[in-house]
Amino acid sequence: MSIALVIPDRKLDSLIEKLNAVLPGVLIQQWPNYSAPELVQMAVVWKQPQGSLAALSNLKSLQSFGAGVDSIVSDPTLPDLPLSRIVDPALASSMVNYLAGIVLHYQLKLDVFQRQQQQQLWKPKSPRLLKHICVLGLGELGQAAAQYFLDQGYLVSGWSRSVKQLEGVHCFCGELGFKQAVADADVVICLIPLTAQTSNFLNTESFAAFKQGAIFINVARGAIVDDAALLSALDSGQLQAACLDVFREEPLPITDPYWQHPAVLVTPHCSAVTNVDTAIHQIVENYQRTLNGLPLMHLVDRERGY
Amino acid sequence: MSIALVIPDRKLDSLIEKLNAVLPGVLIQQWPNYSAPELVQMAVVWKQPQGSLAALSNLKSLQSFGAGVDSIVSDPTLPDLPLSRIVDPALASSMVNYLAGIVLHYQLKLDVFQRQQQQQLWKPKSPRLLKHICVLGLGELGQAAAQYFLDQGYLVSGWSRSVKQLEGVHCFCGELGFKQAVADADVVICLIPLTAQTSNFLNTESFAAFKQGAIFINVARGAIVDDAALLSALDSGQLQAACLDVFREEPLPITDPYWQHPAVLVTPHCSAVTNVDTAIHQIVENYQRTLNGLPLMHLVDRERGY
Repeated sequence: MSIALVIPDRKLDSLIEKLNAVLPGVLIQQWPNYSAPELVQMAVVWKQPQGSLAALSNLKSLQSFGAGVDSIVSDPTLPDLPLSRIVDPALASSMVNYLAGIVLHYQLKLDVFQRQQQQQLWKPKSPRLLKHICVLGLGELGQAAAQYFLDQGYLVSGWSRSVKQLEGVHCFCGELGFKQAVADADVVICLIPLTAQTSNFLNTESFAAFKQGAIFINVARGAIVDDAALLSALDSGQLQAACLDVFREEPLPITDPYWQHPAVLVTPHCSAVTNVDTAIHQIVENYQRTLNGLPLMHLVDRERGY
Repeated sequence: MSIALVIPDRKLDSLIEKLNAVLPGVLIQQWPNYSAPELVQMAVVWKQPQGSLAALSNLKSLQSFGAGVDSIVSDPTLPDLPLSRIVDPALASSMVNYLAGIVLHYQLKLDVFQRQQQQQLWKPKSPRLLKHICVLGLGELGQAAAQYFLDQGYLVSGWSRSVKQLEGVHCFCGELGFKQAVADADVVICLIPLTAQTSNFLNTESFAAFKQGAIFINVARGAIVDDAALLSALDSGQLQAACLDVFREEPLPITDPYWQHPAVLVTPHCSAVTNVDTAIHQIVENYQRTLNGLPLMHLVDRERGY
């Protein structure tokens, strides 16, 4: 009985220690140093290199180590096995906390005051009136965000690919729905999963549908945004500011124009990082389901991409 | 029947218009252009110049245009008349919103990420664990802040000059109490009124009593803080960061070291500004009480200073 961890470039000591504690007798093998690859029934994967699962001849299931699976399913060598992802309430609360902080940052005009501070400029200003928040993508994280802002008294609209109904949220879907969802929003938050359909989904036409002077927050995936279109919308004033936590290439290359753009706040993909303590329960549960031939929790629809 | 407005350096058109609408027939006179000073029964004052009330020979009461009265009672020419201040629920909610945003700013390490952005440095970090918040001063604004952070799940301690009891808040008072209140706090918020006793109240000794690496937020009055002591506590690492909304001299002089200090966030006294719409009710109520010889609402104890 064995689990493989195929998670490059991350310290895994704490994960291994906790898996050993909860699953004594299960061999935890770490790519690329497999000792007995034929024993592995489940692989926990995140940005796995192509071919890294080839040696696991008895693999039965795949467990993403995060909420998104775009960096997993983009691997053409990925075996056709059930794939599940982490749906972690702690992930949602960390995301909501990040969004709450960013919306207050703009509401209090901390961006303006920090620019003024650099110029030793004392110029009191009233807060920005941010009343209407639009959430693009109404999955677990999108729903949690919409509910939070609703509870705080904001007007909330939401958009998703398929029809959703959420009490108190003005829900839209489809192409026409997109324009209605964003048209009056002071802040647009992107929480759409990255799939073949959503790559460059937010482009010149989308940003043109936003209310003039809107603030854009991307906490989903960088490749959903056409970067040239976003920069041009910021430069023209169509968008007032953007807070970006995710990028097409991460780490964000040192020459990327986002770094120095005065209307862009860059954070290094920290809005919601998988917490080992909370994720481990789902990994263990799915491992036991794999052994017993039961359907996995939080199974991904490979066709749909999430 | 007349009210005098003695509020230099501020546009008062909106206030005058609203007073005229609610109190038709009452002459609103604006310093320094009194047309009939002997008709004035009440003066609405804020940072009034010395002697500016001398011509108001039939003055019966004084109404501060803000929550604090330190800039009013510091005037040695101030007549010995009942003085009231604005106690505005909108003021409290604006203050709480500001504090919520600042605490999240530090919790999300936006200060660190913004420094990293300036250096094109991609270095993900976990949020700061800010669990314990101490509120110095438990008046209307301090109580509202303590309650907010309590509701958000923080451990909250509070300190006041006189004994206070607030459910769920660890309340302390007096000199020994101060050290207990701040000893374990990750964030210390100053909401003490400025009086003769509290000038330079936060000095080298006070900051030494803080937990090492604490974050300090001043939204009360600049003169409560010994600035040299604060700068030295920041430079030694005793304090990790400070967010200052109020200063000994405002506008903050261009040469002040706070502007350029890497651990200081300067905002231009915007945490809670008197809202004309909500303040006007109290001004009108106190004017009617003045005419009828009744005690004022939110009367200030001139001895105590608040």
